Amino acid sequence: MSPFTGSAARTPQWRHIRLDVDDDGVATVTLDRPDKLNALTFGAYADLRDLLAELSREKSVRALVLAGEGRGFCSGGDVDEIIGATLAMDTAQLLDFNRMTGQVVRALRECPFPVIAALHGVAAGAGAVLALAADFRIADPSTRFAFLFTRVGLSGGDMGAAYLLPRVVGLGHATRLLMLGDAVRAPEAERIGLLSELTDEGRADERAQELAHHLAAGPALAYAQTKALLTAELDMPLAAAVEMDAATQAHLMNGADYAEFHAAFTAKRPPKWQGR
Amino acid sequence: MSPFTGSAARTPQWRHIRLDVDDDGVATVTLDRPDKLNALTFGAYADLRDLLAELSREKSVRALVLAGEGRGFCSGGDVDEIIGATLAMDTAQLLDFNRMTGQVVRALRECPFPVIAALHGVAAGAGAVLALAADFRIADPSTRFAFLFTRVGLSGGDMGAAYLLPRVVGLGHATRLLMLGDAVRAPEAERIGLLSELTDEGRADERAQELAHHLAAGPALAYAQTKALLTAELDMPLAAAVEMDAATQAHLMNGADYAEFHAAFTAKRPPKWQGR
Amino acid sequence: MSPFTGSAARTPQWRHIRLDVDDDGVATVTLDRPDKLNALTFGAYADLRDLLAELSREKSVRALVLAGEGRGFCSGGDVDEIIGATLAMDTAQLLDFNRMTGQVVRALRECPFPVIAALHGVAAGAGAVLALAADFRIADPSTRFAFLFTRVGLSGGDMGAAYLLPRVVGLGHATRLLMLGDAVRAPEAERIGLLSELTDEGRADERAQELAHHLAAGPALAYAQTKALLTAELDMPLAAAVEMDAATQAHLMNGADYAEFHAAFTAKRPPKWQGR
Repeated sequence: MSPFTGSAARTPQWRHIRLDVDDDGVATVTLDRPDKLNALTFGAYADLRDLLAELSREKSVRALVLAGEGRGFCSGGDVDEIIGATLAMDTAQLLDFNRMTGQVVRALRECPFPVIAALHGVAAGAGAVLALAADFRIADPSTRFAFLFTRVGLSGGDMGAAYLLPRVVGLGHATRLLMLGDAVRAPEAERIGLLSELTDEGRADERAQELAHHLAAGPALAYAQTKALLTAELDMPLAAAVEMDAATQAHLMNGADYAEFHAAFTAKRPPKWQGR
Repeated sequence: MSPFTGSAARTPQWRHIRLDVDDDGVATVTLDRPDKLNALTFGAYADLRDLLAELSREKSVRALVLAGEGRGFCSGGDVDEIIGATLAMDTAQLLDFNRMTGQVVRALRECPFPVIAALHGVAAGAGAVLALAADFRIADPSTRFAFLFTRVGLSGGDMGAAYLLPRVVGLGHATRLLMLGDAVRAPEAERIGLLSELTDEGRADERAQELAHHLAAGPALAYAQTKALLTAELDMPLAAAVEMDAATQAHLMNGADYAEFHAAFTAKRPPKWQGR
Repeated sequence: MSPFTGSAARTPQWRHIRLDVDDDGVATVTLDRPDKLNALTFGAYADLRDLLAELSREKSVRALVLAGEGRGFCSGGDVDEIIGATLAMDTAQLLDFNRMTGQVVRALRECPFPVIAALHGVAAGAGAVLALAADFRIADPSTRFAFLFTRVGLSGGDMGAAYLLPRVVGLGHATRLLMLGDAVRAPEAERIGLLSELTDEGRADERAQELAHHLAAGPALAYAQTKALLTAELDMPLAAAVEMDAATQAHLMNGADYAEFHAAFTAKRPPKWQGR
């Protein structure tokens, strides 16, 4: 995505999620229906999709934390609102809905800043896939993932899960998790490579903010390109990937941050990153 | 594959493997040459290929267990029958043989029901690859894998092993296993992600049957689509995978099992899955 | 690559790396600037690229060990020579440099013999990627990897790292390692699948030589094809991979080593591999 903006105005308020952007360039998106374990509604999916597109145009945002208010991260699509409503939809409407949820995952993978999921309690269904699509998953010991789509009669390959999960934990574990929908508790999640970091009880939000601020203070363009290459090269052959790396690195070697590193290293001082 | 049947009659008896299909829709295929550690013959490969195609057309089969009689699961291609015979084959015959073994692996990945390998003792050569191509590998502590192709002067990339193994355990472990052909015992297999479940001694068959019956009682179409997406999305870019998920999910949201989940959830009763 | 040679003479001496080829067909390439922790220079990258191309044409070489002299394996590109010099380069020169480093990685993946990285101490930046591109990583407990590209303001996707690392350790760990550039010590490296073998302190070189001699005494063509298939099938769909395996195996079943295995097995003697 690109920071060039056209005529579209910035959205004054996101009604279905909570957004805070601090002075350090850290955006925090909080799922905030704690009485419903942050179950997702049609409006919440659409807000996530549109918010990520807007933030991708904002130079001010350099890292994003995705968190959940209350007892858990996210219990997935709301049984009443989503499952009930989709039963009344025709095929075109069902495609529109399922494309939207997939667009949220693509936006998480394609936005030019790192996304850190701060996890505790349940991360189920679409909530598990949102976490899976993040760049970092920081979880406390209460966290339990459940890709429970087959338990409602649907495919485990929801929102790109059948693409992403084998690439994170391998095909064997991914098959087991998506077929059965069993809960995966934090120790197993760590063992199979699903967690970036396991924190002490109740500390995932704090650690996610620390990491986000560390990243926001760093070389933003280098991070953005690292993420873009990790995402793109899953789908490219080696020869093309190596060529893409060469072009990217040549570009960054023309940039301000690479020169700043050398100047700072020579002067034995910490670098002041500009993100360009 | 598709349940529509043409003029071809059902095969009355499989001579080179043992097949049982029970009333719950669980098919059990047993490799049954225990005096030869279930070494595979030309007939056994062909039976597996043709059986999987036939079962893929049978609505009655909803899960398949692949097991081995006697002291081990499968010692691979029979040294006398296969290696001896292939030495006398010309190039066209060798291609025919090696294509057939690869077709067994493709059939395991493409059949519309979950396949559970029930493992104990040796799973070597082609036996290791059959297990690798299953959706679940349930093994007891006596299990040892050995991808021993290089030990007979052949490529470790046999029957898709060089495709599948890196996607299950990562490229580093896969290189080591396929290059060296060393035995991988159950604890290491579990550690690197090659097992779905490690059971107590002598319990792999029982647990495989339990899982097969659990799956056979579940939403069969949801499982079939989960498997199809897991298989297909290894070979697709993210954007296409997300679109394929959306189309699949829209389809399943029109189905009977999704409505049944909602009705059962609302009535606080367990769902009665129809598999459609 | 192919053993057919044209008019180009063998390079009489490699000035920027140390090369030994012993009578068993084991080539050992040693990075040999211990006072600079074997930091890579322009000449060293070019020598590695050209050496691997030459050795790929030599029937005499059947396994290669890549090692580092002194306190560590390789600290990456030299801050003074490489970073300083690249700051003065124009865009075309920067592309030339970054393409060369990527060509070293491609040569490591495409050469027809197994490559074993013998690791101790630091394996940082380009040094970490050289190790990553090897077929085996044998490390002692002092080893620490650091993909520290973002720390100098560059992309973590350097020399194919954003392609290779997710395929070795999964996307989650790869994102963390490439984004943050944190040190990965030997126990973590082993846990996430980055090591082929963890040795006792100071024993990595010895074990790498043992493995190289084991491989050099084995069926060289079978190893070469195993490596080629592992490399190629990361970028191929299942159906094509299975077909490629069938053609490769049919070819090897026409070869001398497969017949030799059968003759030796029948005579109850060890096989004498010819590598053809």
